[in-house]
Amino acid sequence: MKLSEYFPVWNRLTPKQQSELERAAVLRSVPQGTLLHNGSADCLGLIVVQSGQLRAFICSDEGRELTIYRLLERDICLFSASCIMQSIQFDVTVEAEKDSSFWLIPSDLYKRLMEESAPVANYTSQIMAARFSEVMWLIEQILWKSQDRRLAAFLLQESDLEESDLLKITHEKIAAHLGTAREVITRILRYFQSEGLVVLSRGTIRLANRRALEELAGREPA
Amino acid sequence: MKLSEYFPVWNRLTPKQQSELERAAVLRSVPQGTLLHNGSADCLGLIVVQSGQLRAFICSDEGRELTIYRLLERDICLFSASCIMQSIQFDVTVEAEKDSSFWLIPSDLYKRLMEESAPVANYTSQIMAARFSEVMWLIEQILWKSQDRRLAAFLLQESDLEESDLLKITHEKIAAHLGTAREVITRILRYFQSEGLVVLSRGTIRLANRRALEELAGREPA
Repeated sequence: MKLSEYFPVWNRLTPKQQSELERAAVLRSVPQGTLLHNGSADCLGLIVVQSGQLRAFICSDEGRELTIYRLLERDICLFSASCIMQSIQFDVTVEAEKDSSFWLIPSDLYKRLMEESAPVANYTSQIMAARFSEVMWLIEQILWKSQDRRLAAFLLQESDLEESDLLKITHEKIAAHLGTAREVITRILRYFQSEGLVVLSRGTIRLANRRALEELAGREPA
Repeated sequence: MKLSEYFPVWNRLTPKQQSELERAAVLRSVPQGTLLHNGSADCLGLIVVQSGQLRAFICSDEGRELTIYRLLERDICLFSASCIMQSIQFDVTVEAEKDSSFWLIPSDLYKRLMEESAPVANYTSQIMAARFSEVMWLIEQILWKSQDRRLAAFLLQESDLEESDLLKITHEKIAAHLGTAREVITRILRYFQSEGLVVLSRGTIRLANRRALEELAGREPA
């Protein structure tokens, strides 16, 4: 597994640029729970995920969280290298949600590649546009969808990520993903249980009626 | 007033690219209220504002609106040309909030310039990062700031844009900017009036105590 297989515009780099990237990129493995990047506190570098799962989120002054997006195999995180672009004026925190491996590309090298190479620059724009689209979707959810729809969509998304109908997740954690309070999540989950959509037990949630959850989430049944 | 003075990376284009841009860009003037771009319905082209004020906003299925950002002189709107980038997967509507003039750069020409020129590609990334930052700020406001703080911030922003403490704006319009209901705005404005922050009359709002509004908005007094 080489960086060249994970970096989409690799073939459009010059041989010199390729060897610079190969020399500078560092492969790192971290256990679940590791905080990789903390807002404006650092400019870690560009993360290219080899395996595992990362979570990017924002925090309020009071410590409330909101998940912005997840990074899976082959995904690239720009915002851990926000110093490459002065117009990135917001803080994102990145943590490993599962045991993960990733390449770290130094910020200054990537910045130079963007300046030299239109393909790298355009690829960077594409990544940003994709993340931007996710955030716009999120804004519409927050503003215009009720909490129960958002929760149903979240449970289905988790179930897809875990490839299981049994989710090991606390109400506290779900609240942090959705930017709300634990009590709100608990209340909706109890309502879901009373409707037969989920079965709750200590530390787990089992999806008992995917079809009804999909309908509630406004998603086409798979 | 020539496009060359409004397009920031002009000097880094080749003479051929410059003359292509000059030939293809069209200067248009539109009256206040003109709808310039409507979500995914068209791919109008890149807008470079010469004068006036444009508003970019999103709409819910039920017709509620939320202002995403404003475009003033020299600002550039990418999302009216969302077909230049396949990763832009959301719909933004753009309207003239004042009588406005702008250059329209055809999408296909701009797309080709991005592919040819690293400076144009990087400039495009910078614009996107700047808009992304505004949207992230907005998300934090919506999630974590109370409505009264958001309204105070909005009134101050309007007052800055209009260079006046007397705002001619309806409660309906403010609600559309902030993605909420008219009744909510009216209630908070009445509260502001009772506290001496604003003076309401038919169709206008006068900022009576900027200092207190700035404090409420969490903004440093000017």
